[in-house]
Formats: sequence, C-alpha cells, structure tokens
Amino acid sequence: MLNAHQQQILRLLIASHGMSRTVLAEKMKLSKAAISTLVKEMLQAGLLEESIPESSGQGRPSVLLKMRADSAYFLGASLLDERVVLVLIDMHGRTLAATQMPLNLDPPQLAKTIAAAIPDLIAQKSITQDQLIGLGVTLSGFVDEHQAICVQSALLGWKNVPLAELLKQQTGLEVSLENDAKALAVSEKIFGVAKKARNFTLISHGDGIGSAHFFQGQLHRGAHGAAGEIAHCTIEPGGRPCRCGKRGCLDTLASLTAIRESVRDKALECESITVKGNSAAIAILHQAGHALGLSIANIIQMNDPELIVIAHQPNAFDGLLKTVVMQAIDSHVLPSIIGKTPIASMVINEESWARAAASVAAYRFIIHLPD
Amino acid sequence: MLNAHQQQILRLLIASHGMSRTVLAEKMKLSKAAISTLVKEMLQAGLLEESIPESSGQGRPSVLLKMRADSAYFLGASLLDERVVLVLIDMHGRTLAATQMPLNLDPPQLAKTIAAAIPDLIAQKSITQDQLIGLGVTLSGFVDEHQAICVQSALLGWKNVPLAELLKQQTGLEVSLENDAKALAVSEKIFGVAKKARNFTLISHGDGIGSAHFFQGQLHRGAHGAAGEIAHCTIEPGGRPCRCGKRGCLDTLASLTAIRESVRDKALECESITVKGNSAAIAILHQAGHALGLSIANIIQMNDPELIVIAHQPNAFDGLLKTVVMQAIDSHVLPSIIGKTPIASMVINEESWARAAASVAAYRFIIHLPD
Repeated sequence: MLNAHQQQILRLLIASHGMSRTVLAEKMKLSKAAISTLVKEMLQAGLLEESIPESSGQGRPSVLLKMRADSAYFLGASLLDERVVLVLIDMHGRTLAATQMPLNLDPPQLAKTIAAAIPDLIAQKSITQDQLIGLGVTLSGFVDEHQAICVQSALLGWKNVPLAELLKQQTGLEVSLENDAKALAVSEKIFGVAKKARNFTLISHGDGIGSAHFFQGQLHRGAHGAAGEIAHCTIEPGGRPCRCGKRGCLDTLASLTAIRESVRDKALECESITVKGNSAAIAILHQAGHALGLSIANIIQMNDPELIVIAHQPNAFDGLLKTVVMQAIDSHVLPSIIGKTPIASMVINEESWARAAASVAAYRFIIHLPD
Repeated sequence: MLNAHQQQILRLLIASHGMSRTVLAEKMKLSKAAISTLVKEMLQAGLLEESIPESSGQGRPSVLLKMRADSAYFLGASLLDERVVLVLIDMHGRTLAATQMPLNLDPPQLAKTIAAAIPDLIAQKSITQDQLIGLGVTLSGFVDEHQAICVQSALLGWKNVPLAELLKQQTGLEVSLENDAKALAVSEKIFGVAKKARNFTLISHGDGIGSAHFFQGQLHRGAHGAAGEIAHCTIEPGGRPCRCGKRGCLDTLASLTAIRESVRDKALECESITVKGNSAAIAILHQAGHALGLSIANIIQMNDPELIVIAHQPNAFDGLLKTVVMQAIDSHVLPSIIGKTPIASMVINEESWARAAASVAAYRFIIHLPD
C-alpha cells in the first residue's frame, strides 16, 4: 500500500517523461533523503525503474525515475461498435493483446462473454490474473459518479445498468465504466499528447461528437456527469431536429452521421464524403466544419484551455473539413488569442476506445486516493 | 505562520458555515487530538472563534469553529466606474467603510490617490495599518497570472501596467489585481451564494458581459488568463460588428450597452429599457435574452456546473429579460438536464466591485500556499 507521498510521486511521474530524485524533492518540498527512502520502497515493489539519460557533456547525468511498464496491467473493453473490443495494456499504455466478440446487449450475458475472453487474452502474453489491476469499459452515454452504473445509453438502449458490479462478479476485477470521450481524454492525459497539460479539452469526432475536459489536472465530470456534452450545444437555433429532442444541435450539423445524411439528402454518392469537385458536398463540409469550429472556439473563449485535442476517424477529418474547422476557430476567438491554443489531432482506430477504457482503469489505480 | 494542516482548516471553514472539531478530523483524516492542537494555536492567534449552536434536543450540541470577523481586514478598490470606490471589509466579508475618489488614468497618480485615502478610511473603524492584510483591485480587462500587471484594459486604455507594484510602493500592502467577473466569482465563493460549490460559473451582466469559473474549488484563470470571455462568443455569425474586431459576439446582442444602442436605433426612449407595451423594445429584449440564455445553456452543456450565478444591475434584468433568459436556457440544454442547474441572481450595487476586489485579497490570504 502506497502512502500519500508515494501516490504523489506516481502522479508527478505520470505527468512527466521521467524525473530525477532531485526534481521530485524540489517539487514535493521534501528532503532528497526522504525522497530516496520513498523511492527505494517503490523500486523494490517493482513499480518504478531507473533510466540513465545520455550524458549531455555537462557533469554527471542524473538518473530518471519512471513507472515500470510491467508494474501493472489493465484490461479495457469498448461497447461502442457492433463488436466488443477487449485489450490488454501495460503501465506505459502499450497495447499488448486484443480480441473481439459479439456485443450482446443483455448486461449479464455481456459480462459473461467478456469474462470468458480474458484468460486466453492474457495467456498470450504470459500474464496471470493476479497481475491484472482492473478493467475499464467505455460506452456512449452517461455514467454515474462512482463509475459503476450506466445511467443512460441511447446506443445500448440501457437505463441504470449496474454493469461494473456484473463484471466484477464475473471477473473478480475492479471495474470502472466511463463515457467514451471522457475515457479518451483520460488516455491522452496519462499516456498521450496531454501528459503535461493541467487544463485541456478533447473533442471526439465520429458518428457522434463528444468532448471532455481536464481542469486542475483532474477529469471534470460535471455536477450531473454531463460535462462535455458539446454535441447538444445549439449552433443553429430552430435548425434541424436532433435525436435529443432539441433543434440545431452541433450533432445535427457536424457529426459524420449528419454529414452522411446531408449528402444523401442531396442525392450524392454516399460512400465517400470527400467527393472532389462536387459543390454540394463542399457546401456540406463547409457547414459542418464551420459548426464544429465555432463550438471549439466557444470552448476556447469560455475555458481558455492549454490544449485542444481533436480525435477523429481515419480519412474523415483531414482535408477540407479540417481546413474549415481551423479557419472557423480563428474567426470566432478573440483576436488577441488567435493561434495561441495548440490544437492537436489524432486518428481513432479500431482499438482506440478499448485502450481508452483500459486507461480509465489505470487512471483510477494511479490517482485514486482513499476517500 | 500557519502550517499546511492549518491552511486546510481555513479552507474547510471558508467553504462551510462553521464546522466542529469532529467533522474537521473526519474530513482531514487526522485524530481529534491533532485537530484540537492545531485549532488551539489558531484560537490563540485570534484567527478562529467558537460558537455553540442552539441545542436541537438531541444530546450536547457540538461547538462550531468559524473564522473570526476581526481576524483580518482587507481593502478593495474598483476601477470600473468613473470614480474609484475603495472599501474596507472584515474576514466575514462585511463592508465596514467605503469612500470614493476620481479615477485618474495615470497609474502612478492613481496609486498615490488610493494610498492617500486609506488612513482616513481605516481610522473610521479604529483599524490600524498593521491589521490590514492586503489590497485587491478590480478592473475590466486582462490581468497576468501573478495578478500584478494589467496586461490590457480597453476601458482604462492600459497595456502592461504594473499597478500592483505601484500600489505596493505607496501603501506597503500586498496588492492583487483581478478581472471584474473573476473577482465577483471569488467574492461569491468565499462570502456568498457559492460558498459550498466546487464548480460554478458567475455571469456578470451590465454595460458589458463577463463570466468566471471555479473548477475543483479553484478559480480557473485559463491558459492565457482569458477563461470566461463569454462576451465574445459568436452568437450570430456575420452579425453586428463588435469592438473586439469580430462580428455577432454576445456583447453586441445582450449587454446593456447593446440593448441601449438597439433601442436608440429604433428611435425609442432611451432612458428606460423597460418601456412597457412597446413591441420594438420587447423584440430587442427578446433578442438579448435569447442570446444570453443560449450562452448560459452552452456553459451548462459544456461544463455542467453545480451552480450558475447571474450578477446584474438593479432594475435592468428582472422582468422580461430574465424571463426570456430562463426560457432560452431551458430550450437549449439537453432535455435530461433541464432545470437541474440552480440559477441564482444577485444585484450589483455601487460597492459590489470594490467589495469583490477586497475578496480577492482575502482569497489570496486564505488559500495561498507557498509555491
């Protein structure tokens, strides 16, 4: 069991690419001797490893401490597509093994199916059940603050499903549920581009649109778990009806589903949204890009994050859509902050959501402090 | 000098209406004996006082600890109107004395004028210079992260003015600058309706529109100090030109200045914006209320705060404008969270900004941890 100082060491290491004992001592306002004692226990427990950076020629290089890749393993399951994707990751966020299975919408059956797939998955890497720390699950919808219950998911047709408990019974693991965009933000915070950002927003662009914020270094769930519901910000008052019951939501203008529908309405080829030279398709992408860019500009205006990360489907964002989004952001933020917010983009692949789910389990392990 | 535990005690007491030693011990995971020792020093130092609530008839009532009103005094100066307002407050946020002076836009002269007014102000309450902890200053514009420099203020015509240092030289006090809406949010957090909220947003509605967020119990300044710039969110793409250089900003639709201009454009009576029965005036208020409500709905959608506080001018918000704002909020948030975010409103009077400025000094005193 780690003490509060050791938990702080883990958090500092996670938010860096390695740190020396001297830097840890400075940041934590402890003596270097105290840090050495704390670190020694963590090295012995197999949580940390030391790495010696190449000498820069200026004196002896200091030894950097990092989390050991094999200090802990996590599983992640994604319920976002027609098939469940289940992955195994290590403490450096690397995907070691992956498998797929049918998505059974009956929660007890689903829990059994996932549990049954675990032994083969971990055996591929000679990892035993007791080396697994937890299982994370991503889904589209709302999750309660304890990350135990799927409060509502239109995609899964669920209301108040205690999936974490069902999975725990079947697997014996600690289970954490998370909304898709929030899980992806957690993944980028602990393993990805947002490692060093205390305040950032991730936008996920696909069939739907999601977002999630980190504030003060912590995932911001909101008072009703609804933080990040950018998809239902009204962009066009009185516009197209949205599945949420309102009109003119961002989702009705800029999601891939909305873009496909608009293209279909225009009786264009539906297979590709990058139809070149077709002015109607260009107009649709302009409208979508403008709506998405305006929403991102609103986030910048309201929250002034250090970083925006746009996670998108392969081949569905780069090109005209991205160009219009970037122009729209610049057009709708205060002139004095134009171009000051870094905007990173990343491609979502088949395993991204499952890996994000596993990151949620890792995040809980790393930052969880006893209540 | 308080230690880290004692600082935590202050923060817990500030976020409550008094707490017993038992509750402090539970929240801080310390023994009751340890809490008693820490509290004893703070009682002796005159920071805390004990109060015994009336017995509820169920056993002995526990003694509540509170900050003493006379444990510290703060000054606040507002540079938001034609005259500087300077107030003295106590540790309970009560305004003890106030004075006014001309607003000299020359920073060194302004610092001298404010410093010269302090001795008379505090003498009214027989308070001496050494009982003063700090001076806060509110202004319209951007302030640097150290709260020392006014980076830019269109209203004052300032760029990079080191006002805190100028005032410190003249007064000998610790000086903190703050943007107007952020100062008002701080004031509501430590003395007002947002005392118990960890995540809330304050909207200030007047000649301009401002906003400020608390996340995870801390004021959120943003990566460039620009968090809360709701006034320049685009509400009507391609709409009326805004003084910021963009078009269709919330400010051009819903600020009192914009409402007055619209009324003037319609050649109506300008003295009152509550002209009854005049359909053009009603349309203007509808447009303004809809724009403001939509922006607040966007904040709810994006950040899902526990509480929204709308601070407004007397007689300029209640009535039709407020009704339309409330309707617009409900129309533009996800149906599942309609009505779930409490919305408080408060009237800004002549002294509100100066008191908010003094709160900024108090906030720094209470929460400031050594770097």
